[in-house]
Amino acid sequence: MAYVPLTDADFDSAFPNSRRVYVDGDLGVRVPMREIALSGGEPPLRVYDTSGPRIADPQAGLPALRADWIAARGDVDVVRQGALRPILRARRDAAVTQLTYARRGEITPEMAFIATREGLPADFVRSEIARGRAIIPANINHPEIEPMIIGRNFLVKINANIGNSAIGSSIGEEVDKLRWATLWGADTVMDLSTGKDIHMTREWILRNSAVPIGTVPIYQALEKVGGRPEELTWEIYRDTLIEQAEQGVDYFTVHAGVLLRYVPMTARRLTGIVSRGGSILAKWCLAHHQENFTYTHFREICEIMRAYDVSFSLGDGLRPGSIADANDEAQLAELRTQGELTQIAWDYGVQVMNEGPGHVPMHLIRENMDKQLEWCQEAPFYTLGPLTTDIAPGYDHITSAIGAAMIGWYGTAMLCYVTPKEHLGLPNREDVKAGVIAYKIAAHAADLAKGHPRAQVWDDALSKARFEFRWEDQFNLALDPVTARAFHDETLPAGGAKLAHFCSMCGPKFCSMEITQQIRDFASEQGVSVEKAVETGLAEKAAEYRTTRS
Amino acid sequence: MAYVPLTDADFDSAFPNSRRVYVDGDLGVRVPMREIALSGGEPPLRVYDTSGPRIADPQAGLPALRADWIAARGDVDVVRQGALRPILRARRDAAVTQLTYARRGEITPEMAFIATREGLPADFVRSEIARGRAIIPANINHPEIEPMIIGRNFLVKINANIGNSAIGSSIGEEVDKLRWATLWGADTVMDLSTGKDIHMTREWILRNSAVPIGTVPIYQALEKVGGRPEELTWEIYRDTLIEQAEQGVDYFTVHAGVLLRYVPMTARRLTGIVSRGGSILAKWCLAHHQENFTYTHFREICEIMRAYDVSFSLGDGLRPGSIADANDEAQLAELRTQGELTQIAWDYGVQVMNEGPGHVPMHLIRENMDKQLEWCQEAPFYTLGPLTTDIAPGYDHITSAIGAAMIGWYGTAMLCYVTPKEHLGLPNREDVKAGVIAYKIAAHAADLAKGHPRAQVWDDALSKARFEFRWEDQFNLALDPVTARAFHDETLPAGGAKLAHFCSMCGPKFCSMEITQQIRDFASEQGVSVEKAVETGLAEKAAEYRTTRS
Repeated sequence: MAYVPLTDADFDSAFPNSRRVYVDGDLGVRVPMREIALSGGEPPLRVYDTSGPRIADPQAGLPALRADWIAARGDVDVVRQGALRPILRARRDAAVTQLTYARRGEITPEMAFIATREGLPADFVRSEIARGRAIIPANINHPEIEPMIIGRNFLVKINANIGNSAIGSSIGEEVDKLRWATLWGADTVMDLSTGKDIHMTREWILRNSAVPIGTVPIYQALEKVGGRPEELTWEIYRDTLIEQAEQGVDYFTVHAGVLLRYVPMTARRLTGIVSRGGSILAKWCLAHHQENFTYTHFREICEIMRAYDVSFSLGDGLRPGSIADANDEAQLAELRTQGELTQIAWDYGVQVMNEGPGHVPMHLIRENMDKQLEWCQEAPFYTLGPLTTDIAPGYDHITSAIGAAMIGWYGTAMLCYVTPKEHLGLPNREDVKAGVIAYKIAAHAADLAKGHPRAQVWDDALSKARFEFRWEDQFNLALDPVTARAFHDETLPAGGAKLAHFCSMCGPKFCSMEITQQIRDFASEQGVSVEKAVETGLAEKAAEYRTTRS
Repeated sequence: MAYVPLTDADFDSAFPNSRRVYVDGDLGVRVPMREIALSGGEPPLRVYDTSGPRIADPQAGLPALRADWIAARGDVDVVRQGALRPILRARRDAAVTQLTYARRGEITPEMAFIATREGLPADFVRSEIARGRAIIPANINHPEIEPMIIGRNFLVKINANIGNSAIGSSIGEEVDKLRWATLWGADTVMDLSTGKDIHMTREWILRNSAVPIGTVPIYQALEKVGGRPEELTWEIYRDTLIEQAEQGVDYFTVHAGVLLRYVPMTARRLTGIVSRGGSILAKWCLAHHQENFTYTHFREICEIMRAYDVSFSLGDGLRPGSIADANDEAQLAELRTQGELTQIAWDYGVQVMNEGPGHVPMHLIRENMDKQLEWCQEAPFYTLGPLTTDIAPGYDHITSAIGAAMIGWYGTAMLCYVTPKEHLGLPNREDVKAGVIAYKIAAHAADLAKGHPRAQVWDDALSKARFEFRWEDQFNLALDPVTARAFHDETLPAGGAKLAHFCSMCGPKFCSMEITQQIRDFASEQGVSVEKAVETGLAEKAAEYRTTRS
């Protein structure tokens, strides 16, 4: 099936009655929100917006929102000129990280932006960053981003994976996937490209992305050695880190916890090692019988990353690939090492989050969260699902949304989406959307359960619209308005049905929800409270009520 | 869109390499299972099968599997001849219920059937029934069913709702929905018809259903009074119960917990009363200022139901219809009354389960389960979802699968499915399938978390197939094999890819999962354990390994 590029119409039609507005924050920041206009005298609802500025010309990239903020700190030098903008690096190897600024007590424009975006005090944002409990992935070479935060005292975030592979897809398609994923709500995007044109694909993604971009640098390093893990070297890997840091990648997955001595622990597993990065490093370790070079050179990696403010996403290369392997010795051994590495990264002023599983049955999910909080000293957790059963390939966005919602409630800060194609093939545009929507559901369910002050207002607005039969408002408030409307129209296509005070479930003759309105009306007519109307007033009025209402 | 009837081909193609087999149990019962044949010398996997015997002629109905079992108990009389078989009733108003037999210490053929089906001792089945902790919905006038059990110490079950409405759908379509829902795994089906031909629709559904059928009799009673709740009477309702009991309905939803004094508690809710049955009775109570007639006549209802072994599904007419209304005073007041009614039903020897919500955020789900267990004395809980957020109409099979999986883990015995059309329209065939699959996932995830002895073997078989690149086995073991295969073929359509030792994620050059196999092979070549191979053997062999493997 030939690839059809996205058009403006795809974006214009996605959220009817919504518009992008900007809210002024401290330090002159202007924070985007999506404002949903409602009918019936209801105030508009403003919701978090990840879609970024509309892209006029992909060749020109997005505006460099952060360029002045970065320059004003006076701690970076221009390395050389890049294709679209100068390439920056920390002056005199300083740590130009949000963690460093936060520890110094500085509230950066990035923090101010996030404070307005999340509806929380700026100094709270700063203090959460300072103690390592949250990160702001924001490479100084990615000035296009609208800053966002990953931490368990903020809204739960979701990540969408894109990327070409040896099998298919083009650069234009990957940029469209980025725009598409962020349109529906992806908070960060990982570019997992493994095929050709990795560098150029990433450049286009970065220059057009208003959300942080993560990568797994070992993938590109492997391409550089022809796909043979044994031939990887520290030098090739190091140069790849610098190459990507200069482009502006905001976080790196580094599988430094895959230690040589942990590899045998996976040999008797039902599904061995399933992480691509983990198995690349395991193979290298075995072939050389040497310790993982990303572990032995970890401090040098920290020195590189702090010079650009690239955040660590400490990979879980030994995550379980099946229910049978959940929470086993290999997985937990690596998690302990992730904790040690977290502390080292912090010593260098580098921001850190930790990756987690994977495939985990519900009763073992909590243990993952509890041990991560303890061993990794509350650094943000970033999990892939977890999938709560293995038996539903084709539906793993659902098997994993269950686990994702739960672990989000327990404290995971970001949920890596899983699409319906997981285990089977490469996601197309519809799969990306299905994965993002399933994960927005999981993240929002977690926000509700955690009592985030901005969460329930959305549910309440939608439920009020539903109860009042404001059908158009109900559609427009949905995570996916067009689908909601299409499903309604399938059963009741007539335009008048959008105004009808009934729906297809009960039909026109009797409506469940009408009864409450009648109680309220009756109380109002009698001039008494609803409780009073029923408890004392109704006995005498029952006959009259029957006459006048039926 | 015109309705297209199902054909044999739809059934033949659904589960490739599967066949229906029968396992012999005690008392001469023969229990159906679906046996999935595997390749690579793997033994076939047998899984629970709800699809029933293939229907040769819908006009003739299914074989009356239980007819001899019922007759052999000698406690029923023929009331009169029905269209396809005699209509039975308890002799001398006895309680011809599985609960009565279980209390007497009798293991019925129904219990023996379930023991084999669930892989548990027959006397355990009996004792769970006797103490009210499980039910076997099995009307003596529904001899076609393959008995199943609903209780928290058994596999978690799922229910699918079908039924025509004032808006659309035909009898043939409803029977097809029944067959379709049970093909994919529905354990019971509720016929919620509200339009015309209710009696005839139900007759066809019952005669062709190998799973228990539930109804909400107040729906038909309301049709009899022209859709005006005020005109309902006990006599009309009673006659409807008898009519449906004679047809063979296995469980009735009865909203006897909707008391007059609880109705005002809903007036200030965000979404009032959303249960159709609940609002019908609330309206009746208000109009007459009298107590709910299903409450005041509850003992007479018990007398009717025990004469046919119809089980109670005590309705939650005041369940919350939004996150804002979860676990409120009205909901919990009704639950307490459900508990009182449960005890009364047990006094009459009638089997009982309790219906639960609805819309509940994750952190409030556990309270529902705990209070139900306590107040309803461990009678089985049967919940609708719950939906964990209100903001995703069009995706409520997912918002609710999250809550369903969790409450299933906590102890809910049956999960009522929600389709993508919930709140929006009437489910079509694809929606029914999507709802059933989402709920099979939730139920199985709960079974895994509860440690049901037959649960994980399925996951392990699929994951082993995945790890060994037995693609066809992986598809055939999936809940939906055809979709899994189609998703794979989208990316790698070539037939050879089904045999390939790689997938579309990593591509042909490097495969994550291959490394574990290489470790095992290497250990085997060296004649040492995998641990030994890596810990001591590999240092010397590393160079050789590099040469021979790369």
